[in-house]
Amino acid sequence: MGKLIIVGTVAFDEIETPSGKTDKILGGAATFIGLASSKFDVDAAIVSIVGSDLPKEYLDILSDKKLNLEGLEVVEGGKTFYWKGKYHNDLNSRDTLATELNTLADFNPIVPASYKDAAVVMLGNLHPSVQLSVIKQMEKRPELIVLDTMNFWMDSALPELLEAIKHIDVLTINDEEARQLTGEYSLVTAAHKIYEMGPKYVVIKKGEHGALLFHKEEIFFAPALPLKEVFDPTGAGDTFAGGFSGYLAASNDFSFENMKRAIIHGSNLASFCVERFGTERMVPLTKEEVAKRLETFKLLTQFTIK
Amino acid sequence: MGKLIIVGTVAFDEIETPSGKTDKILGGAATFIGLASSKFDVDAAIVSIVGSDLPKEYLDILSDKKLNLEGLEVVEGGKTFYWKGKYHNDLNSRDTLATELNTLADFNPIVPASYKDAAVVMLGNLHPSVQLSVIKQMEKRPELIVLDTMNFWMDSALPELLEAIKHIDVLTINDEEARQLTGEYSLVTAAHKIYEMGPKYVVIKKGEHGALLFHKEEIFFAPALPLKEVFDPTGAGDTFAGGFSGYLAASNDFSFENMKRAIIHGSNLASFCVERFGTERMVPLTKEEVAKRLETFKLLTQFTIK
Repeated sequence: MGKLIIVGTVAFDEIETPSGKTDKILGGAATFIGLASSKFDVDAAIVSIVGSDLPKEYLDILSDKKLNLEGLEVVEGGKTFYWKGKYHNDLNSRDTLATELNTLADFNPIVPASYKDAAVVMLGNLHPSVQLSVIKQMEKRPELIVLDTMNFWMDSALPELLEAIKHIDVLTINDEEARQLTGEYSLVTAAHKIYEMGPKYVVIKKGEHGALLFHKEEIFFAPALPLKEVFDPTGAGDTFAGGFSGYLAASNDFSFENMKRAIIHGSNLASFCVERFGTERMVPLTKEEVAKRLETFKLLTQFTIK
Repeated sequence: MGKLIIVGTVAFDEIETPSGKTDKILGGAATFIGLASSKFDVDAAIVSIVGSDLPKEYLDILSDKKLNLEGLEVVEGGKTFYWKGKYHNDLNSRDTLATELNTLADFNPIVPASYKDAAVVMLGNLHPSVQLSVIKQMEKRPELIVLDTMNFWMDSALPELLEAIKHIDVLTINDEEARQLTGEYSLVTAAHKIYEMGPKYVVIKKGEHGALLFHKEEIFFAPALPLKEVFDPTGAGDTFAGGFSGYLAASNDFSFENMKRAIIHGSNLASFCVERFGTERMVPLTKEEVAKRLETFKLLTQFTIK
């Protein structure tokens, strides 16, 4: 069973969408990545930090999915990272109403000793120096290091981000951020510029418009499943990343052909995530449901032309 | 060889994009549809109207592609429909700088007698009453009637558009227009509402984000080919429609499985159209180039998952 290190936030989210609003609920990049990866045969550990205000049942949700929490530091008396946001009617954009770093401000990630030989490292969106410090703790070069980032770090910590990117294999980034990072409008040209920064693979996430995987001159595309209703997009990108990295760790095959499958698995899982608030859909999701929807993905994209 | 009726404008376009600008060049929906359909074994006729100011060599471009022009009326002393537009930097939006209907204002389409039994009718974007009048001239119900429209007609001739839509099989429309026509944000729900208006198939065009084909509960998706440079998007949607309808007419198979292929062929041809101004890329395009890029489309979208 392949080992996977997941680094990212475990957080309180408070969300408002056109469909309704929540109190403080379980969220965070590592949470969504972990839940998605748990749909595969993978030995995954979460490296993160929370305060003692995070209800124990939230941590139980993660440990029930066999996610190793040795690397999840609970700061006694500390407060958990908190994000509050409101989505616009089209669900493609949102306003951040509050961000409290709390314990995350002093996060010094510690990779558990038994995971320092993990085959896959999935670096969720965090300060790039934190991401880099995890890479440096690995005993041997992992088979695959995937890094997710966002425009916030391009604006506030670009040198650190460029340094971290040098050490990774796959960068996952959204379309606007790829354009910002490279100054190129064409995503093909942007991906080629990103290769020069280090990664051999670039995944460009386009939200409801799917995701592109670039490697050398090759391109693979996975659509997002068209849905009757998108309830809450929170965590969809992280769920995608968790499906991608989890599938690759489980299959221990890092070929481009297998990455295509990983992209499809990621898109498939993300299509569930958006159906309910926060983690509500991902927690009870069964492997049977996942396998069934995968068939829908095939119908959506596969054709025969002589 | 399947017969195809193409109704739409043959026009002067004057285009400015971030890459450059043109004088008055050959354009129009029927032009692009016709050129795309000519890549297949199809007997296609263009029904349109122009003024005697349209250079003879423009008409020769069409007749050289074996497009029948009996139904293309040339008004002696009349002026050809003229559109001038400027694309924004992202190429996804444009400003119309000038529109002169000219001879198009009094267009009374006449379907040539020998095409009144055509298997496929492709109604390019025009006043819906003109589109309907073509349907009514057909001797027997065609196997497939495809109608393309735009928001302009929803704003200015909605009752006529709804009447025309009742008589067709496939509506092609872009994503924003599908939302406007139905009042639904979800494209899945929008497609289902459009079924109730008449069409059994709905094609939703998303420009650089590809196209969706809906039929009953089934959905098929074709991406747009990611390109290093999009030079001029003019005519891409019509080229897509021409590839779609031309392939279906040539293959004489109107099953959903074959429509999937038609969508891929349409996307494939559209990927060439945007590489040069106006018709510059489509005119010299060879069947070999088309077949080669189709292989790229397969690599872009096809995967194997057990």
